[in-house]
Amino acid sequence: MNRKMVFGTAGKIVCAEALILIIPLIVSLIYNEKCATSFLITIAISAIVGAALVFFGKTENEVIYAKEGFLTVSLSWILLSLIGALPFTISGEIPNYVDAVFETVSGFTTTGASILTNIEAMSKGMLFWRSLTHWVGGMGVLVFVMAILPNVSKRSIHIMRAEVPGPVKGKLVPKMRDTAKILYLIYIALTVIEIIFLLAGKMSLFDSIVHALGTAGTGGFGAKADSIGSYSDYLQWVITIFMLLFGINFNVYYLLLTRHFKPVFKSSELWTYIGVAVFAVVAITFNIHHMYESIPETIKQASFQVASIMTTTGYSTTDFNLWPTFAKAILFALSLIGACAGSTAGGFKVTRVVILFKKIRSEMKRLAHPRTVKVVNFEGKRLEESTTTGVTVYLAIYIVCYVAVFLAISFFDNFDFETNFTAVSACFNNIGPGLGKVGPMGSFDCYSIASKIILTISMLLGRLEIFPLIIAFMPATWSKVK
Amino acid sequence: MNRKMVFGTAGKIVCAEALILIIPLIVSLIYNEKCATSFLITIAISAIVGAALVFFGKTENEVIYAKEGFLTVSLSWILLSLIGALPFTISGEIPNYVDAVFETVSGFTTTGASILTNIEAMSKGMLFWRSLTHWVGGMGVLVFVMAILPNVSKRSIHIMRAEVPGPVKGKLVPKMRDTAKILYLIYIALTVIEIIFLLAGKMSLFDSIVHALGTAGTGGFGAKADSIGSYSDYLQWVITIFMLLFGINFNVYYLLLTRHFKPVFKSSELWTYIGVAVFAVVAITFNIHHMYESIPETIKQASFQVASIMTTTGYSTTDFNLWPTFAKAILFALSLIGACAGSTAGGFKVTRVVILFKKIRSEMKRLAHPRTVKVVNFEGKRLEESTTTGVTVYLAIYIVCYVAVFLAISFFDNFDFETNFTAVSACFNNIGPGLGKVGPMGSFDCYSIASKIILTISMLLGRLEIFPLIIAFMPATWSKVK
Repeated sequence: MNRKMVFGTAGKIVCAEALILIIPLIVSLIYNEKCATSFLITIAISAIVGAALVFFGKTENEVIYAKEGFLTVSLSWILLSLIGALPFTISGEIPNYVDAVFETVSGFTTTGASILTNIEAMSKGMLFWRSLTHWVGGMGVLVFVMAILPNVSKRSIHIMRAEVPGPVKGKLVPKMRDTAKILYLIYIALTVIEIIFLLAGKMSLFDSIVHALGTAGTGGFGAKADSIGSYSDYLQWVITIFMLLFGINFNVYYLLLTRHFKPVFKSSELWTYIGVAVFAVVAITFNIHHMYESIPETIKQASFQVASIMTTTGYSTTDFNLWPTFAKAILFALSLIGACAGSTAGGFKVTRVVILFKKIRSEMKRLAHPRTVKVVNFEGKRLEESTTTGVTVYLAIYIVCYVAVFLAISFFDNFDFETNFTAVSACFNNIGPGLGKVGPMGSFDCYSIASKIILTISMLLGRLEIFPLIIAFMPATWSKVK
Repeated sequence: MNRKMVFGTAGKIVCAEALILIIPLIVSLIYNEKCATSFLITIAISAIVGAALVFFGKTENEVIYAKEGFLTVSLSWILLSLIGALPFTISGEIPNYVDAVFETVSGFTTTGASILTNIEAMSKGMLFWRSLTHWVGGMGVLVFVMAILPNVSKRSIHIMRAEVPGPVKGKLVPKMRDTAKILYLIYIALTVIEIIFLLAGKMSLFDSIVHALGTAGTGGFGAKADSIGSYSDYLQWVITIFMLLFGINFNVYYLLLTRHFKPVFKSSELWTYIGVAVFAVVAITFNIHHMYESIPETIKQASFQVASIMTTTGYSTTDFNLWPTFAKAILFALSLIGACAGSTAGGFKVTRVVILFKKIRSEMKRLAHPRTVKVVNFEGKRLEESTTTGVTVYLAIYIVCYVAVFLAISFFDNFDFETNFTAVSACFNNIGPGLGKVGPMGSFDCYSIASKIILTISMLLGRLEIFPLIIAFMPATWSKVK
C-alpha cells in the first residue's frame, strides 16, 4: 500500500474543491449575501488541508494499483463531503453538522435527498452550492481532476474504474486523460444546452442554472418547495427530456459525435433503457389517468416521474406518494434498475440488468442441456466470465447492503415499512425521494442522527458502487505488505 | 423430448395421490362427516386420470434427461394441486375452485397461506387433508414415489435435482432409491417423535397429528383461528424446537445416524443457520420486550416467530404485525433467507447465503489483487464454478420474479405497499403470513381472483426453485428435437 500516493492524490482533489467553492462564493457576493464569509472560511480550510496532504504525500510518476485506486477514490469522496458541508454549518443555514454532511453527500452522490424542511428560506449561495455538488459528483471528481491537471499518475484507469459507474469500464481513446476531457466536454455542452432551453421557457437565470446542474448530475436538488411542480408544461418537458438524456451512457454521445451510428443503433443497453421507460410511462398513465384532468396531463406527469426516478434524479411535479400502489410499485422497480452505466445516474444500472437477463438465459440453457458450453454476448462482444460473475456478485452485495441498511434504520426509527424500505432505495440508489414520510413532499429530517449517518454512508456506497468503499476500509488493504 | 415418459411418470404420481387421499377419507369417516363423499369422488377421478396417463405413457427403463426431469416434476405438481383441490370445492367448504387451488398449492408447497376466514368452521377431514398436503409436499412427492415404487427410471437423480431444494444436490448413498428411502424414514421418525411430544403436552390426538404434519413440512396450516396462540407454553416450545429441527439439512441427521459427527460440527451451513436464528431472537427480544409482561415470555414469543418465519413454516403465537418496524424488518429479512437446503423449508436457503458471502469475499480479493486466482470452498470441498455461478444467477432470477409478482398483484389489488410487498414474500418463499392485511391474523381472501392465481404460481415457483417450472414451459423444451 502506497499511502503517500493516496494522500497526495486526495490532497489534489481537496485543493480542487477549494477552487470549485469560488463559484458559490461569487454567487453569494452577487446576491450580496452574508453566507459569503462561510464560503471564504471553507476555501481557506480546504486549501490548507489539501496543501498539507499534497505536501506530505507524493503524486507524480507513481503506479496506482487497484486497491490504491479504491482507497484514493473513497478517501477523496469522504474528505470532499466533510469539507463541502462546512459552509452550511458555518453560515448557520444547516446548524447541525451531521445534517450538513447528509445534505452534501446527498449532493455529491447526486442523490438529492434533503433534510431541509423549508428550502425557500435558504440563501442563493447555498442553493447554488448544493446544486453544484450534483454537477461535480455526477461525472466524478477524480475524473474531473484527471481532465484538468497535468502529471496524472500512470495506470489512472484504476481511479476511473472505481469512480465511473457500470460493470464494463473502458477508455474512449487510448489516453485516460483525453477520455476524461472528452467526457467532461460532452457533459458541459449538454448542461449549457439545457440552460439555454430553460431560459427560452422564461425560467430565471439562477433557477435555470440550478436546475440544469441538478438534471445534469441526475441529482434532484432544486430551488422550490414543490420541486418542478410550479413551472410551466414546457419547462417540465424540457427537464423530462434532459433527465433522460443524462441517463444515457456518455459513450453514445461520443460515438454519435465521431459518426459511429451503427453501434448506437445496435446498443442493447440503449434500447432496453428506452423500452423500460416507455413501458413504465404507458403502464403508469393507464393506472393514474383518473387522477388528472386530461390524457396529455397524465402522460406529462407519468413521463416526468418515470424519467426522474429511472435516472435517479429525484425531481417531482406531483406527489406520487398519493398514486395507487401499482404506479408506486413501478417507480420502486425503476429505482432499483436505474439508468445506463457510464451516465451520471445511480441505481443498479440497465447494463447490469441486461447482462443478468442474458446470464439467466444462459443458465437455463445450461440446466436444460448440461453438456453444452454457453457464451454471453453483450453489445456485439463476448463477455468475459469475470464480468458476468462481477455483475451477479454485485447484485448479491447490493441486496446484502440494502437489507442491512433497512434493518439498521428500522432499529433507530420506527417508521412504517414503506417509509423505511423506500428510504433505503432513495439513498442507496441515489434517487432522492422515496415513498411514505420520505415521499416527494416529505423530508429526511424526520430521521434520527444515527439513521442519517447510516443513510449518508449508504449514499456513498451507492455512488461508488459498494466495492471501492468496502475494500478501502478492509484491514487487509491497510496492511504494510505491498 | 420423451413425452411418453413424462406423462407416464406424472401418471404414477397422480395414482399415488389417489392412495394418499384415502387417509383423509378415513379421518372423515371416523368423525362421520359428509365430506367423505367428496374424497371418494376425488379418489376416483385421481385414479382414472392417473391410470390413463400411465396407460398412454411409458415409465420403465427409460433414461431421464435434465429437461425431462424438470417437466415431469412441474407437470406432476400442477396435476397434484388441481386434483387435490377438488375435495374442497366438491364438499362446498371452499366453493370457489381458484380459492381451493390456492389453498392446495399453499399446502403442497408448504406455504401455509390461507384464503380461509373461518378455519374453525372446516370439517376435520378437510383440515386433515390440508395438513397432509404439507407433509407430502415437504419432502417431495416424486421423492416419495421413488422411495415406494419399484422400477424407477434410470438417472432419476434429475427428478431429485428438480424437486429437492438447494444449490448442491447429491445422493446420500449410491442408489437414488435408497437415498429417498432414508430421507423418508428420517422424516417419518421426526414427525412421530413430535406427535408424541405434543400428546405429552395434552394436545388432542387430531390436533397433534395436524400440527406435526404442518411442522414437518414447514407448512403452517393448523386447526385454530389464532394458529398456536391458545396452546400452552410447553406446546409452543415443542413446536418451536421441531420447526427449527425440520429446517436443518436432512443430510445432518443421516450423518448423525451413521456416526459421522465431524462433518456435522464443521458444517458452516448449520452454524450459520443457528447463528442467524440466535441473533434474530436476541435482537427481536431487545426490540419488543416492552410489549410483553416478562422476559421469558418475550423470549418465547421471539423464538417462536423467528423459528416459524426462518423455517418458512408460518405458525404464529402473537400478531407480529403489531411489532415495531425493526422486529418486522428482521422477520422480513429472515423470510428471504429461509432455512437450510435439503430441508423441507422454503426461501433462498442458508446454503446459498453462505456461498454468496464467500463469493463476495472472493470477488473483493479479485478486485483488490486482480492477478490472483480465487477458489471458493464450502463444507471442506472446493465449489465448482458452475455451482457458485448457479447460486448468483438464482439470486438474479429470484429478484426478477419477486419484483414481477409484486408489480402484477399491485396492478390487480391496490393494497398498501407493505401488504403487497410482503404478500409476495409470504407466497414466493413458502412462508404463509406476511405483514399488513396478510399478517398472521389476516387472510389472502382479500385478494382478487387474478392476484390469487399469480400468487398460486409464485408459490409453485418458490417451492420448485423457479428454474424447473420456467424451463418446463419454455417452447424450446416442447420442440420435437431430442
